[in-house]
Amino acid sequence: MAKQYFSRRNLNFLLKEVFDAASVTHHPEFSHIDAESIDMIMDATVQIADNISEPIAQEMDRKQAEYENGGVTVHPKVKDYVTAMGDAGLIGAAASFEVGGSQLPHIVNAASGFVLSAANNAVTSYVGLTAGAAGLIASFGSKELKDTYLPDMYAGKWQGTMCLTEPQAGSSLHYITSSASPMEQDGMYKIKGQKIYITCGDHDQTENVVHLYLAKIDGAPAGTKGISLFVVPKFRIENGELIDNDVKTIGIYHKMGQKGAPAIHLQAGADDNCYGWLVGEPHRGLTYMFQMMNEARIGVGTTGAAIASTAYYAALEYANERPQGQRLDVKGQDPNAPQTMIINHPDVRRMLLFQKAVTEGSMALIFQGAKYADMIHTTEGEEKERYQLLLDFLTPVIKTYPTEMGLQSVSAGLQCFGGAGYCEDFPLERLYRDIRITTIYEGTTGIQSQALLGRNITMKNGKAAMAYFEEVTRDMKAARTYDDLKPYADKLAKYAQKLQEVTQHLIGFAMKGDAERFLSDATLYMEFFGTVAVAWQWLKQATVAKEALVTKNPQGDELAFYESKLHTMRFFYAYELPKTEGLATRLLDDEVLTLIEKEKEILV
Amino acid sequence: MAKQYFSRRNLNFLLKEVFDAASVTHHPEFSHIDAESIDMIMDATVQIADNISEPIAQEMDRKQAEYENGGVTVHPKVKDYVTAMGDAGLIGAAASFEVGGSQLPHIVNAASGFVLSAANNAVTSYVGLTAGAAGLIASFGSKELKDTYLPDMYAGKWQGTMCLTEPQAGSSLHYITSSASPMEQDGMYKIKGQKIYITCGDHDQTENVVHLYLAKIDGAPAGTKGISLFVVPKFRIENGELIDNDVKTIGIYHKMGQKGAPAIHLQAGADDNCYGWLVGEPHRGLTYMFQMMNEARIGVGTTGAAIASTAYYAALEYANERPQGQRLDVKGQDPNAPQTMIINHPDVRRMLLFQKAVTEGSMALIFQGAKYADMIHTTEGEEKERYQLLLDFLTPVIKTYPTEMGLQSVSAGLQCFGGAGYCEDFPLERLYRDIRITTIYEGTTGIQSQALLGRNITMKNGKAAMAYFEEVTRDMKAARTYDDLKPYADKLAKYAQKLQEVTQHLIGFAMKGDAERFLSDATLYMEFFGTVAVAWQWLKQATVAKEALVTKNPQGDELAFYESKLHTMRFFYAYELPKTEGLATRLLDDEVLTLIEKEKEILV
Repeated sequence: MAKQYFSRRNLNFLLKEVFDAASVTHHPEFSHIDAESIDMIMDATVQIADNISEPIAQEMDRKQAEYENGGVTVHPKVKDYVTAMGDAGLIGAAASFEVGGSQLPHIVNAASGFVLSAANNAVTSYVGLTAGAAGLIASFGSKELKDTYLPDMYAGKWQGTMCLTEPQAGSSLHYITSSASPMEQDGMYKIKGQKIYITCGDHDQTENVVHLYLAKIDGAPAGTKGISLFVVPKFRIENGELIDNDVKTIGIYHKMGQKGAPAIHLQAGADDNCYGWLVGEPHRGLTYMFQMMNEARIGVGTTGAAIASTAYYAALEYANERPQGQRLDVKGQDPNAPQTMIINHPDVRRMLLFQKAVTEGSMALIFQGAKYADMIHTTEGEEKERYQLLLDFLTPVIKTYPTEMGLQSVSAGLQCFGGAGYCEDFPLERLYRDIRITTIYEGTTGIQSQALLGRNITMKNGKAAMAYFEEVTRDMKAARTYDDLKPYADKLAKYAQKLQEVTQHLIGFAMKGDAERFLSDATLYMEFFGTVAVAWQWLKQATVAKEALVTKNPQGDELAFYESKLHTMRFFYAYELPKTEGLATRLLDDEVLTLIEKEKEILV
Repeated sequence: MAKQYFSRRNLNFLLKEVFDAASVTHHPEFSHIDAESIDMIMDATVQIADNISEPIAQEMDRKQAEYENGGVTVHPKVKDYVTAMGDAGLIGAAASFEVGGSQLPHIVNAASGFVLSAANNAVTSYVGLTAGAAGLIASFGSKELKDTYLPDMYAGKWQGTMCLTEPQAGSSLHYITSSASPMEQDGMYKIKGQKIYITCGDHDQTENVVHLYLAKIDGAPAGTKGISLFVVPKFRIENGELIDNDVKTIGIYHKMGQKGAPAIHLQAGADDNCYGWLVGEPHRGLTYMFQMMNEARIGVGTTGAAIASTAYYAALEYANERPQGQRLDVKGQDPNAPQTMIINHPDVRRMLLFQKAVTEGSMALIFQGAKYADMIHTTEGEEKERYQLLLDFLTPVIKTYPTEMGLQSVSAGLQCFGGAGYCEDFPLERLYRDIRITTIYEGTTGIQSQALLGRNITMKNGKAAMAYFEEVTRDMKAARTYDDLKPYADKLAKYAQKLQEVTQHLIGFAMKGDAERFLSDATLYMEFFGTVAVAWQWLKQATVAKEALVTKNPQGDELAFYESKLHTMRFFYAYELPKTEGLATRLLDDEVLTLIEKEKEILV
C-alpha cells in the first residue's frame, strides 16, 4: 500500500461537487464521458501512481540522471511508467480522437496530472513533455507530421520535448539565434543551434526524441516576430529506418531537485546534417508555442500544488504519530506526564492548516482554470470568448500562486518534522528541493507577474478583468445565502475592493507612459492578486461544503470532511488574506526604490 | 582570488562606526585589544577563509560525510582548517587567557565567525562545536577536566560536541533517558544511552572527540531538573594512553545540506564501559547547557546571515554580468537593441535589495547582541544586569530573524539566477539547502518564539522588555537629529507602538491563565517582533551613515557605501516593515483556529 499523498475525497469534492466535471457531457466532444467514466479514469490514474511511479520516487532522486558514454541514463522504470500511461490513453488525454487521443475534459486531465505529480513529480515530466509536444503537432502540424509522429508519441514509445531556451536567451526568447535554412524540399530546413535546460531532452528509455524546436528562418525579422517552430527528431525516418539526425547531447545539468528527469544541453547541426520540419506557418512559432506554454504553465501550477499535497500528508501523518513535549495548557504541571503528539501543539496545527489551506486552495484555482478550458470547448460565440478571456487572464496566477505558496507550504511541512525533515529518511527534504524549480521554469514568477499586470489586467480594455471580478462577485453572492458565510463574503469584498484600488493606482503609471514604474512591483501585485483569488476559491468551496452540511446531514468522516473545509476557509481568511495589507501599503506608496537611474551604484 | 562572499567594508562599518568594538579596551579583560589588533584578527580570519575553507566548500558538499567500515570519513582538509584555526587562537577566541584562550571581545568573535560561515558554513561547525564544548568545561568544569581537555581542544587536535537530542527527546529535553550511574571514584559515572543528530560527533580528521553529554543520574528528579552534564570522551585517558570509551557511532544522517559536517547517531555504554565525568554540580546540566545554547543560538543566527551574504554577493555578481531582455522603459522599441544586464530590471533590483536589507540588517542585530555580551563583561552592578537582560531578551530574535528571513533571502538570490540557480554550476542551490537547517537546530523557530513571548516579554516583570524599548527609543531620538531621517523614526515609532499593543493584547490571555491561547500564534509574534527589531537596526545604521555623509564628505566608493546604507534602510521601511500589518491584524483577531479541543478531526 502506497503512502497517502493526496485525498481522493477532496478530488471528488472538486470534480463532482464544486466544478461538476461531468456537466460537459452534453457536448458532442465529451459525449463519451459521464460521472462513472471519470471515476474509472481516476482509478486507472491512481493504479499507475500507486504501483509504478510513487514506489520509484525516492530512487529516482538518489540515483540521478547521468550523461555518460555519450548517452543519458535514467531510471529503468521510466519506460514502464510511460508505457503504462500510453496504454491507459493518458499521454493523449487531452488530444482528440481524430489524432489518436482520448478527448478527455481538461478538468479530468488536471485531476489525473495532479495525482501523478503528487506520486512522483520527476517521472511525470516525461509524459508531460511528450503530451505538450504532440499537442503542438496535433494543433498546427501537417497531416504528414501527425501521421509520422503522433502514434508513437501517444503510445509512449517516443519522447517529446520543448526546445526554447538558449544560453543567451531564457526569459527573453526574443534573442534566440538557432537558425533554419530552407532545403530543397518544401517545409524542410537545416537546423543549427544550441538549446539548454531541455527536460527529458535525451535518455535511454525511449526509441526516439521528438524536439519541438524554436529557430529563425534565414532572413526572418528580428525579435519574436521572426521565430518559427520545427519538429526536429533525434532520429529522422528515411525509407522506414531511423537515421541519426545530428542532434547531439553535449551536456547534462545536475539539478538540486527533480533529479530523475534529465535537463539536457543539446547541439543541433554540428555536422550540418540536422533536418527540421516546419510546423504551421513561418514566423508564427512563438504564437503556437504560447498555446502549449499556457497549458504547461497550468501544468507547473499543478505540480506545485501536487508537491505541496504530498508534503502535507507526510507532515500530517508524522504529526499524528510523533510524541514530543507536553500540551501548552498542562505543561509543567506533572513532570511524569507522557508526551503529547505534536499535532496537539498550536504551532504545529498552524503549520498543518497553512499547508492544507495552500494545497486545497491552489487545487481549486487550478480546477477552476481547467473548468474554463472545458467551457471554451463546449460553448460558442460571446460565451466562448468570455471563458477564453477568463482562462488567459488567470493563467499566470494559476502558475504562480501554487508554486510560490507551494514552496512555503512544503517548507512548513519540513519544519513540522524538525531535524528529521532535513534528513533523507523522510521525503520532505526531497520535496523541498523538487518544488523549488516550479517558480522558475515555464516563465519565472517575475515574468508571470508582468504578464498579469502588464498585459492581462488591461487586455481588451479591461474586459477580462471585468469578467473575472464578475465571477468573484457571483460566488460572493452565493455564499451570502448562508448567514455564517456572510462575514467571509464581506471580508473578501473588502480585500477585493482594496485590490481594485491598487490596480487603478498602478494603471495610472501605465497611462502616463511610465512602463517601468507601472511594472516595478508587479511581483508584489501578483502576490496580492493570487491571495485574493484563492480566498475566492475558498469561499466557493465553503459554500458547497455548507450546502452539503445543511442538505445532506452527513455523519462521521463525511461530516469531518465538510467541517474541515469550513475551518480551513476560516483559517485562510484569518491568517492568509491579511498578508495583503502590507502589500497594499507598499503598492500604494509612491517612494521609488528599485528603478535604475542614479541608484545604479546603490547595489554594493 | 576567492569569490566575494562578504563585504569587509560593511564589517568595518559595524565594528568601527556603529558598535565601536574597540571601546571595551579600557577594561582590563580587553586591555590587549585595540582597533589595530581587531584589524589583524580580521585579516587572519579572512586568510583562513579565503585560502582554506572557501575553496573546499563545494567539494565538501559534493562528497558528503560518510559512515563506512565502522568509521566516519569527512573531507581531508577539515584537519587543515581546524589546525589553522587553533594556531590562530580562534578556537579559544572567546575563552580567557587563564584556560588558554584568546580573550577576544564577543563582537570580534562574531565578526570572525560571520566571515568563516560565509566562506564555508559546513566546515565552521567543527570549530564551533569544539569552542562551545570547551567553553562549558572552562566555565563549569573542575581544574582536572580543564587541564585534561582544553589544551588539545583549543589547539584543534580534539573535536568537541554537544550531546542533547535523543530519539524520543528533541525539542523537549525534559524526556531524555540517558543514564549516569555513580562509580567509586568521585565525579565519575557509567554512562548509557543514545544521542542523535550529533554534529561532528565522530570523524577521521581528529584524534579524539569530547562529548558534552546530558544524562540523568540514577534517582534524579523527573524532568529538566534532573539533568546533569558530563564530559564523555570517545577515548579516555588512562596512564597517558587513549583508551576506547565505548561511545559507538551506530549511524549517520544524510542531510539535505551542510553535507560536509556529519550528523551522527551515537550509542554510549553498549558494553557497559563508557565513563563520564560530571561537569559542575549534579542536576544543573541544563542550566549550564543553556549558557552554551544561548551562544550557539547567536551562532546559528550568524550562520543564517552569513549564508545570506554569500548568496547575495553571488546574485549581485550574476546580475551585473548576465544580459537578458530589454529594460522595461525601452522594451519593444527596437527589436535589434542589445540585451540589458538583469540588474537593470526593477524586479531583480528588488530581489537584490531584499537580500541586502535582510543580510545587513541581520548582521547589525547580531553585532548588537555581541556588543551587549561585551558590555556584560565590562560593566558592573545594575548596568551589567541591564545588558544581561537585553542579551537574554533578544537572543531568540537574533537566532530567528537571520535564519527565517535568511531562507527567503537565499531563495530570492536563487531566483535572480533563473534556471542556473537550480543547477550545481552555481553555489545558490547549495546555499539554499545549507541554510534550511538553521531554523531547526538549536531550538526551532517555534521554540524560540515561545521563549520570546512566553518567557522573555514578561521576564522580571517586564524589565527586560522595558530596557529593550528604551534602547529603541534612544536610537530613534538620535535619528531625529537629521531631518530626512525623521519620517523613518516616526514610522518605526508607529510600528513599535502597534507591536506593544499586540503584546498587551496577548499578555491578557496569559493573565487569564490561558497559556495555550497566549502562545498559539507566538511564531507570528516573533515575525512581527523581529521585523521591528531589524527596522531599529536599520535606522541605527542609517543614522551613522547620515552622520558620515554630513561630516566626512566622502567620495567615490565611500559615498556609494553610505548612500547605499540609506537607500537600503528606505527599502526596508517601504517593503519589509509593512509586512507586519497583516500580522497585527491576525494577532489582534480573537478567532481561535489552531487549538485542539473539538477541532481535532479538522486536520484531514
